[in-house]
Amino acid sequence: MVKRTSLKRAECPVARSLDAIGDWWSLLIVRDAFDGARRFGEFQNSLGISKGILTTRLRDLVAQGVLDTVPASDGSAYQDYVLTKKGQDLFPIVVGLRQWGEDHCFEPGEAHSVLVDNETAERVGRLEIRSRSGRAVGWADTTVRKAGTPSPVQRRSAPAKRSRRSASTAAGP
Amino acid sequence: MVKRTSLKRAECPVARSLDAIGDWWSLLIVRDAFDGARRFGEFQNSLGISKGILTTRLRDLVAQGVLDTVPASDGSAYQDYVLTKKGQDLFPIVVGLRQWGEDHCFEPGEAHSVLVDNETAERVGRLEIRSRSGRAVGWADTTVRKAGTPSPVQRRSAPAKRSRRSASTAAGP
Repeated sequence: MVKRTSLKRAECPVARSLDAIGDWWSLLIVRDAFDGARRFGEFQNSLGISKGILTTRLRDLVAQGVLDTVPASDGSAYQDYVLTKKGQDLFPIVVGLRQWGEDHCFEPGEAHSVLVDNETAERVGRLEIRSRSGRAVGWADTTVRKAGTPSPVQRRSAPAKRSRRSASTAAGP
Repeated sequence: MVKRTSLKRAECPVARSLDAIGDWWSLLIVRDAFDGARRFGEFQNSLGISKGILTTRLRDLVAQGVLDTVPASDGSAYQDYVLTKKGQDLFPIVVGLRQWGEDHCFEPGEAHSVLVDNETAERVGRLEIRSRSGRAVGWADTTVRKAGTPSPVQRRSAPAKRSRRSASTAAGP
């Protein structure tokens, strides 16, 4: 990633998350961990990437506290990689990527994997953003308030309207 | 991104999404568009990246149908970049990254921007994954079912337990 250091101290949590996660390969490693992978070889077989790249990404994910290493569950000399709480908390992001991909990255009728609820074997529902009171909100119903800014109620412009970029609520990186 | 072509035809919607979005910079461009940025210079000022990198990322996002170009809203010769429906649908992913970053990437008490509901000026609620019937589900309550696989009800292993990697439900990249 180019200029990653510029994101590490950002006041925007989106930028910090991206910096902490690393890159797409790292998130695919996390996806595989959600799906049960624990061994180096399991990740490698799934992702088809070089040992060098995988080694670096696993090391970075451990350094970030997303994965932890534990003695192999079968008692062998290998080590397993397991998701920490911080890693498990990435699940909504992976689900969000899945649902967006299902909506926008497949031809009609094209086969893809699905995420199902174990209790019912039905696909899980859509990720939704809600207000504290439970009302569904879209991006146009929300505003990013910069750190240290008091809380004016200000409507976000509709997509076709003029930028809010100059407003005090705009979030830098 | 290394070996991006290996993801383009993946049956996993997570991999396809990552391939379509591009890289972290692309997602930060989308974040800025949600926040009101429309002009090349606005994105550049926010992100602090080179013109060359930004030009490439914007072009790719337009090619992917995430952004569209429209005549500048002020009547000048410039063009504005606006989110398409496909781009707007990335909002839950950006919110997921924000909430994870808030939880895990800041020291206690460290300032960060917040996403507020315009109606109440309160922070929006947590992203939640729910079953079709509305029951909250975590990752351990779900299973990825491969394309073309019939629908056995199978519980996902708890984190400390043995991998499901060898099960038929494991999702490849």
